[in-house]
Parts: sequence; structure tokens; C-alpha cells
Amino acid sequence: MASIAHELAKNQKEISVSEFFEKNKQILGFDSLTRALITSVKETVDNSLDACEDAGMLPELLVKVEKSNNTEYIITVEDNGPGIVKKEVANVFGRLLYGSRFHTRAQRRGQQGIGVSAVVMYGQITTGRAAKVRSKISDEDTAYECELILDTKKNRPDIIREDRIIWDREHGTSIEVSIKGKYIGGKQSIFEYLKGVAIVNPHVKITFIPPEGTPIVFERATDQVPPPTRAIKPHPEGVELGELLSMAKYADTNRITSFLNSEFSRISNRVAKDICDAAGVPLTQNPKRLTLEQAGAILDAIQKVKIMSPETDCLSPIGETLIRKGLKNVLGELKADFYAPPVTREPKVFAGNPFIVEVGIVYGGGITKDDPVQILRFANRVPLMYQQGACAITQAIENVDWRRYGLEQRGGHGIPFGPAIILVHLASTKVPFTSESKEAVANIPEIKEEIELALKACARKLKTHLNKTERKSKTRVKFEIVQGIIPMIAAKSAKIVGKPMPKLAGTITKIMNVVWIDDEAAYEKKKHKVQVKIYNYTPKSQNFHLHMVVPFDKIDPKTLGLQPLEVREGNKVTWDIRRIASTDTFELKFDIVGLSQEEYDNELYVSGIDAASVIGVDVLPGDWDLEHLKITGEIAPEEVEDGEEGDIDYDEGAEVIKDEE
Amino acid sequence: MASIAHELAKNQKEISVSEFFEKNKQILGFDSLTRALITSVKETVDNSLDACEDAGMLPELLVKVEKSNNTEYIITVEDNGPGIVKKEVANVFGRLLYGSRFHTRAQRRGQQGIGVSAVVMYGQITTGRAAKVRSKISDEDTAYECELILDTKKNRPDIIREDRIIWDREHGTSIEVSIKGKYIGGKQSIFEYLKGVAIVNPHVKITFIPPEGTPIVFERATDQVPPPTRAIKPHPEGVELGELLSMAKYADTNRITSFLNSEFSRISNRVAKDICDAAGVPLTQNPKRLTLEQAGAILDAIQKVKIMSPETDCLSPIGETLIRKGLKNVLGELKADFYAPPVTREPKVFAGNPFIVEVGIVYGGGITKDDPVQILRFANRVPLMYQQGACAITQAIENVDWRRYGLEQRGGHGIPFGPAIILVHLASTKVPFTSESKEAVANIPEIKEEIELALKACARKLKTHLNKTERKSKTRVKFEIVQGIIPMIAAKSAKIVGKPMPKLAGTITKIMNVVWIDDEAAYEKKKHKVQVKIYNYTPKSQNFHLHMVVPFDKIDPKTLGLQPLEVREGNKVTWDIRRIASTDTFELKFDIVGLSQEEYDNELYVSGIDAASVIGVDVLPGDWDLEHLKITGEIAPEEVEDGEEGDIDYDEGAEVIKDEE
Repeated sequence: MASIAHELAKNQKEISVSEFFEKNKQILGFDSLTRALITSVKETVDNSLDACEDAGMLPELLVKVEKSNNTEYIITVEDNGPGIVKKEVANVFGRLLYGSRFHTRAQRRGQQGIGVSAVVMYGQITTGRAAKVRSKISDEDTAYECELILDTKKNRPDIIREDRIIWDREHGTSIEVSIKGKYIGGKQSIFEYLKGVAIVNPHVKITFIPPEGTPIVFERATDQVPPPTRAIKPHPEGVELGELLSMAKYADTNRITSFLNSEFSRISNRVAKDICDAAGVPLTQNPKRLTLEQAGAILDAIQKVKIMSPETDCLSPIGETLIRKGLKNVLGELKADFYAPPVTREPKVFAGNPFIVEVGIVYGGGITKDDPVQILRFANRVPLMYQQGACAITQAIENVDWRRYGLEQRGGHGIPFGPAIILVHLASTKVPFTSESKEAVANIPEIKEEIELALKACARKLKTHLNKTERKSKTRVKFEIVQGIIPMIAAKSAKIVGKPMPKLAGTITKIMNVVWIDDEAAYEKKKHKVQVKIYNYTPKSQNFHLHMVVPFDKIDPKTLGLQPLEVREGNKVTWDIRRIASTDTFELKFDIVGLSQEEYDNELYVSGIDAASVIGVDVLPGDWDLEHLKITGEIAPEEVEDGEEGDIDYDEGAEVIKDEE
Repeated sequence: MASIAHELAKNQKEISVSEFFEKNKQILGFDSLTRALITSVKETVDNSLDACEDAGMLPELLVKVEKSNNTEYIITVEDNGPGIVKKEVANVFGRLLYGSRFHTRAQRRGQQGIGVSAVVMYGQITTGRAAKVRSKISDEDTAYECELILDTKKNRPDIIREDRIIWDREHGTSIEVSIKGKYIGGKQSIFEYLKGVAIVNPHVKITFIPPEGTPIVFERATDQVPPPTRAIKPHPEGVELGELLSMAKYADTNRITSFLNSEFSRISNRVAKDICDAAGVPLTQNPKRLTLEQAGAILDAIQKVKIMSPETDCLSPIGETLIRKGLKNVLGELKADFYAPPVTREPKVFAGNPFIVEVGIVYGGGITKDDPVQILRFANRVPLMYQQGACAITQAIENVDWRRYGLEQRGGHGIPFGPAIILVHLASTKVPFTSESKEAVANIPEIKEEIELALKACARKLKTHLNKTERKSKTRVKFEIVQGIIPMIAAKSAKIVGKPMPKLAGTITKIMNVVWIDDEAAYEKKKHKVQVKIYNYTPKSQNFHLHMVVPFDKIDPKTLGLQPLEVREGNKVTWDIRRIASTDTFELKFDIVGLSQEEYDNELYVSGIDAASVIGVDVLPGDWDLEHLKITGEIAPEEVEDGEEGDIDYDEGAEVIKDEE
């Protein structure tokens, strides 16, 4: 029996990280030939972009994919970044778990120190060929060039050849690697990946030379590098007991308060004192001698003491405009009916890492109705191409009951069907991926909840639009019927009794007894031509206020007939509508300039008129406080969607209202 | 500018594998509190089971989960395995990427050398507490016990306390670890995981002590340890060019043929010679000096030379009986209508690793109709609990057009809806997981294709059953109508004309003009009482052969009236049905003993009779060669399902036919 334990012990040994990944290359994103090619491009491009941005430079990349034989391709990625000093080149490209970004808490594309070396390793495993790296830094006249492989037994680079060469660029890095792969088009392709990169990184210029066909240039849309994101200390929220103890053990101060203040963000000396007081830990406690119980008490106190939300300058969200542009770009030739105003949430924290969730939805028009909605996932401005089913973004979408928001969904769970595209971006100082291939966000409860809230906030705007569209269409149908049938009946009756046809406006008015407000907007010559028609089908003259959410500074003043009574917050515009006589019609018209087609959408409300007397628009929601305008009239409560009451959103009432504005 | 490259270089550094996973614990399966608890139990249990089986012992495990405070639990897992020699204990439990199973190509639960040390690390990060390990090997009188943590900066164990103690068991290992977690019930729970383990490992006994409530014992169902699976050399199929070159470089022989013969399975000296001949590589070539071109030629030659399929003794599939039992166990109190005979495919190879796919489907009865089908995933006899959406098993299920097989599925893609449970098991010398958390199989084309083929093979059996059920039910309805209405018409007519009621058998016979065969089976007192009724509604006497697929050795001979004409392959039984006069009925009855309720299903065919003259059963498929029985009569072609022609299955015609038998 003993011999078994001893026998088994003989096989126990260390596994080098490169041996591990050599045998588990699927974990790194090399599970199929098509994916291997995309992963290789993705890792090298992300690396180049990070390098350029670390140096505050406008990235300009060349991406070339050449077919060298039936299953082998040569990938070349060249950047105009700062270059890499000679002694680090081999380590950066020929060693797993080596890099500059792992130990910093900052929003970067690559954070693991694995990606690009993994490409070199995959290349040598599948083709037997070394990678060629060239790098030039600006204070040297020549570039350093080497051919290298990764010694998988030792996880160290093995330089096969090195040289200094003339390279006619001031600085930059280029890598050329042969890999086994398969080049395809379609949704999961290098082209689509690069397109996604260009959409959410408008400061990047990429020239793509595919194996066949003409080169494609993704021009930059702006010359501004995004503001550099700051590296931060961990936010105290979500720090674990053992982590705190371990940090305290290595503290370089002897006072617990200075330790807390210097090692965490958002802990001022004052807050540190409050935490220690609440935890019953003396302010003079040496962190190196912190006990397990004290550490636990400090964590509990962190929950109780008021600590500011994380800084936002460590994050770089995509923003409303780019989300809209991104969605438009994906649509290509197709036209959509409606772009829901994108939602960017306030930063939240998981395990000490601030993060922001953004969501955009586009609906209708030419988007196919019979398929599941298309999902576009981004993390730290990188398009996620694979493992959709594994991703917390997808799971959050599956958890939302989209039937409430106008999409089809069997059982109220799963990916909804309908003519929509949903875009979600997660920006964080640390994106928690499910694996080293960085294609799916892990199911961290804090993150999934935020994504769900953002989805619902954006979906409510979609629902409002769909409700409005449906209401307008029903109202129009009703009026067309009334206005079509009554004259026919009148004509028939007049003929039978041999009398002239009576005037009908009064009759229609009696039947309808409402003010009908109908708005339309046409996009012509880069202008939105807005027209609001008000029909007074009541027996008396009407006065009320008309409110519209519309960017006032974009209205061409020459085209605006009736001046508004008030403009608040730049986009809440109120008109005083006076004395529209019974059976009369009033038209409010103006042009909007400087908004692209997908950027325009209005919200229309009335106040100072009985809710039952008006159709086509809603009365003003309660949160538009208009007391000072001295309008009387019923103010209806905000519309609450079916079954929404029990919803998690409503635990955060204040935010919901904000989202709706 | 130079300063930037130099500045950036300062941050470049090595990342230890434990630092990496400390910051990326979600990759190891610790993304939420509930999953963290299950992952911890799973990793320790899998480790214990592997240890017992490595030593050829019948595993007996104790799994205890205690609540120590609001979010902390103490997990204890104790086994009766061979124990671990003292000098290896700390490494096994306190060091990532260290183990005995990584460098062997064999079917094991754990293969990475990460799992159990990751649990220790997660425990210390979240609770600040060390793990306690105890181990005894049988030639020592006392057990070794230590408390340890994992030094994440160095990836080395840090032993805090060690001792030798008396332990009243002969040999075994126990680990006790405090972790932050959340204990829940339901589908994703420790109980369900252990139940899954017990189902597919009937030789294992597990006692589970939950935080509350009574202990649960999963008794073993067999005393047989599964036959030990052999470690093998890689199969030459799927070996990569770089791998081959690297293996050749380290060869311990000077002849390429001996190298191929000794380093790969299924390459005999003869085959090695054929490969070299086909590749144009001299037989005396020294592998250490193999060129890239020669290696490429050898890989091409491997594709051309006939090489045997991999050995199967390196794999341990679950098998038909256990798959049925597993499905029955999952159903619990529910009854199902039909257990499709499970499919176990022949071994295939990916990247040199043999693998086998098994599929079972259960349908109908009490299973809910309105939800997506339930999916049970297993890999190397381990239940997969998380990341269903990321798994190639799920993706294969989504790729099958289940509408062809009787389940609902919008657009013929995605997880089907309907009253079914689908079980899939992948057994391999190397399961390619998508991440270190080992919950989802990566999308390796060879594996996904095999899973799809296995699913379709099993689904065809389901479809055959559904077709038969539908046909029988339609036939019965038709006969009930005819037999109900005609006598009523006759009675009414007789009354009107004042004549006695005529005999109706002849009339019905004229209307129907068919032989109706209807079979039923009732399960009573552990017997299946089978009854085949044959009604001759034709104007003449009938002779034909009746064929049934049924295990003949399970038929109680005392109950069998008519002896069969022939029994082939133990379950293809043919009866000679002679001279059933017009309007007569014949009953074939027997009892089947020794089959559980879910194990019985028959297939019924006729031959020697015109296809148009018989309803209720099909005429015999063409592949039951009965030439020697000298029966004449139309033999219809095998039923081909709608749209199936273009299907990938049919590229492998031989296998399809085999599946159908």
C-alpha cells in the first residue's frame, strides 16, 4: 500500500505556465483555425493600441494577413508607438505572464501579460516558425530586430537571430508571425473585429491588407487621443479579508490610518479615522500587526462609513455619440426606425475596481424581425467576438423580461427576438474575463446587476417610443374613420331627405370631444423638419402648455414661428398655446439643424388641460416641476409599465426618474 | 520621446502565476459566492476521487459544509485514498501548476494541477485563514497534519504549523478550508453536484453533511472500481508541425522510424516505414536533425497512410445502463414516456487525444413542456454545473435542427423547447476546457461534430418513437370511428326497414381492407406484459412475418405462446404468422423480465405482405437482410426524415444504419 503513495509521489512535479498553455491553447482563444487567426490579430492589435496610448500618441496601425500555404498565414502588425527598449523586446514577445500593465489598476485593453506571447507560441507550435519582431525607439538611429521563439519548457524567450537595421520610421514596433489558421468573412472575421475597433476608437487609423482583394483603410474620425486614464489605488468596496491582511502585512507605515489613506482611493485621513473608530481599532494600530478580527471589523466598518463613489477619470467610456455612430455603422445600408438614447451609468465598484456600463439600442426599419436580436459586446473599447453565451453581458440580456419593452421573448427569459441591435460596453480598471482569451465577461454579481439596470433604462426609452408610435397610429386610424364615415353618412342622408349637405365640423367635434396632437418629423437636406399639428375637436376654445424635449440650440430660429414661453436645461422647451377656437387647427413648425438622422427623437407632453381631453400625447410627467408657470390642470403620475412595480429598478427610484429625463 | 520607451520599460515585470490567479479568481470558478462554494467542493472531491482511482481503491468520501459566520463556511473533504507522502503535501495543496496528472495522457478528472491549491488560495484571500491538511499513508503509524497558505507572490506553500497525529484510519487524506461563500439549494447546488457524481460514478460512496438538516448518504451501487484507464502516447492524428519538430528535437533515438514508433500510439514499425516512404524521408533520418520541410511532409503522410483508430482502454465511458439510470434519477418522482436508447460513439481523436461522446435523451411524461429542454453535461465523469452557454455541448445542441426530431425550436437553431432532458458525456484523455474552472468544453471542431452526430443518432430514435406513437394513435382513432359508426348505421337501417341487424365484420372488412397491428406493453410487478394484436380486416386469409427488436433472453419462455421462426443477434426476433382468416384476430403475448421500466422499448415490423395492406407498423427496413427466410413481399426503403438528405450524417452512411439498428 505504501508503495502506491510513494509511487504516485514520483509523478508529482511543477508545470511551467507555458507548458500549461501549450497544452491548453483553447483557453487562450486558439480552439479553431478561424478563431486562431482572429485571436492572433486581436492580441497584437490590442497590444499596439495600448502601447501608443500609454505614450499619449495617436495610433496608426498596419495589419497585414498573407496566405503562405494552404493552412498557414503570415500576420504582420506594425504600429507608430514608442517602441520597446532592446532588453525588453524578447521578454514582451517571448514570455507568458510578463508585462507592464498587470500590476496597475487602470483601464487598458491588455492586462494579463499573456496575449501577444501566446500568439508567438501558437505560431511556433503550429508552423514550426519563429516570430520576427522589430522595434525602434526615437533616441536611437536604428531599429532592433530579432527572430524568437518561446521555450515552452522554461517559459523564456529563445532568440534565434538578432540585428540592428535601418527602419524609415521614427519609432514603432512591428511583429510578423506565421500561424496555422483559416481566413473567413462574416460576422466573426478580422474585418469585423477591426471595424469594431475603429468604431469605438475614433482616434485610431488602421490600414488592413487582407490576403485577397484591396486594402481597407479605417480613417480616424478625430485627432484627439482620449484623455489618458489614471491608474488608481483600489476602492475599499469589495476588498477581501485576506487581501486586506496581506496588504497590511506589507504596509510601509506604522499607523493603520495612514495605511488606509495611502493604499485605498477615496479614504481621506478623516474617513480612515471614522473607519477605525467604527471598527474599534486604535488609530495608532500598526498595520503589520493587524489581527484577523481587527481586519474583519475594518471591513464591516467600511460598509457603514460613508465613502465616496470611485473617481471617474480612471475610466474612458465610449459615450452617447459614439454609441449611436457605432450602431449606425453596424446597420450599414439598413435604416432603423429608432435609436434609443444611449445610457451611460454612474461608476460602480467590484472588488475595488471602478467600472461603468453603457448601453445603446437601435430598433426597427430594415433590421430583420425573425431572428434573435443582434448583440454587440465591448470591454475597455475592445470588441468581443467569441463566447457570447459565456458572457455576463449576454446573461444580463437574457435575464431582462423584454416582453415588457416590446420585444418577443418566450417565457420572458433568454435572448429576445425582434428587429433590434443591443450594444453593451463595460469599461473598468480590471475587466474580469472568464478566461485568458478575454472574450467573455465573468458573471460577477455587481457587474451583471449594473448591466441589467442599464439595459432596462435604455429599454424603457424604446418602450416609450413604441407606445408613442402605437398610440399615434391608433389615433390616426380612429380619426380617419370618423372623418371618412361621417361625411358619407351625411351625404347619403342629405340625398335621401333632399336637403343640402350640412357642415360637419361641429358634429365631428361632438363625437370626438378631444384635442388631437400629432407630430411628425421628416429628414431632408440634413435638416429635421418638425411639425406639430393641434386639432381642436372640442366645443370650446382651448389654452394649454405644450412641452417638448428637444435640443433648443439646434432649432433654426428663422424657422420657428411661435417663440417658447421657457427653455430649461437647454432641451426642455415649453410653448404657451392660446385660444385655439373650436374646430380650429394650429401648427407649430421648425427645423432642426446639426443633428444626424439617428440623433433626433423628441418627447412631447401637454399640461394645463384635462388628461381625458387630449389624445396623441401624454400629459406632463410629475418630475417636470412647472409650479412657477402657474398652470393648473391635472398632472398625471409617471407611466409605470406593466408588472414593473416589483422590479429591481424601482428600489432606485431616483435613478429611474433620472434615466427617463 | 526616448524617455517614454525607457519609462514604460521600468514597469515591465514578471507576473507569478499565483498573483495572476489571485487577481483573476473568476477564471478559476470563484466569480460569485454561491459558485465559489460549489467550486471548492468540486475541486476537492474530484481530487479525492482521482487519488483513490489512481490507487485502484473504492472511493469513500465525507463531504462536510459548516457555516462559521454570516458569509464564511468551513468545507471538509476526507477520503480513503492512498494518502500523500509528507514532502509532497504542501506542494499539492499550496502551489498552483503542480501535480501528477498534467504530463500524462489519461482520462482523469483533474489534469491541470491548479484546482485544489486554488481553493486554498481563495480561502485565504477571502477569510484570511489557512487550510488544514491531514494525510496518512499505510506504511506509517501516524498521519501528517499541517496548516498552510499559498504565498501568492512566490507561488509556494507557506507551512504555518505541522505535526504528526494519531488518525484512526489506515490511509487517506483530508482537507479543511474556510471560504467565503453562500450555500443554496436548487439546480446549481452542492447536493446536485454530488448527486451527479454519484450517478455517473456508481462505485463511489459519499456522505454529505450539509450546514443544516440531516446528512445524506449516496451509497455505492457497485463494488467494482471501473477498469483502470491506461495512459497513452499521443495518437498521430492532429499533432501540430511545431509539436512534432519539438518532440523530434528531444528524441532519444537516432532513427526517425523508431522515434515515430515509440512516441506515438498506433504507429507500428511497419506504419512508421510507410509514413517515411510516403513523406520521402529516409528511414535512417536522425529525428534531431529533422527539417521543417521534412516534418511537414511527415504530417501530410500521416493523413494518407492508414492508421488505426485510437485504443479504447484509455477511456472510461459511462455506458448505456448508467445513462438511463442517471436520467431516471434526475427525473425523481416524475415518469417519462420514453427513454431513447443511449448512443455511445466510437472513439475519435483531436490533437492526438482520443475521446468518446455519449448521449441519452428522455422524453415526455411529467417533464415540463413549456421550458427549454434540460441539458445535463458531463466530462470525464464529472458533472458540469456552470457556463452552460460557453460549452461546445450546448452549442452542438443549438446547432441541431430539433424540429426534425419532434421538438419545438424557433428558426431551427438554439436550445429546443419541449418535454425532454438531454444528457451528454465527453470522455477524453484530455478534456479541452474553455478555462481553468473546467465547467465548459471548448469549441474544438472535431469534438463539436462528434457531439452533433451523437445527438442526431439519439434524436432519430426519439423521432421513430414519436412517429410510431402518432401513427398508432391515428390508426386507433380511425378504427374506433369505423367500428362505432357502422353498427349504429346498421342498427338504424335495420330498424327502419324492419329487418334484423346484419353481421358487420364483412362490411367493415370491405371498408378497411387492411391488416391492423397494434402493440401494447404494460409494466406490472417488474414485468413488461407485451401484447401484439393482429386484426385481419381484409377479405382473404393472411400470411406474413412479424419482426420485433426485443432482447430475446429476457422473454419469459413460459409466457411465450408462438415460438419464433428465428432469433438473430440476440434481439432480432422473427415470427411466422400463418393463416389468419378474414375478419379473424390473432394475439401474440409474452412477458419480459429483468428490464427496468425505462429500459424497455420495442421496434415492430412486418415483411411478406404488401405495404399498402398493413397499418400500425412499418414494413421491414432494407438492412434486415432476410433473404434466407425466402419471404417475398415489398421491402420499403428506410424512412428518411424530411430534409435530412443534405445532413452531415449521411456522409457516414454506414454509421447511420448502425445507429438505427
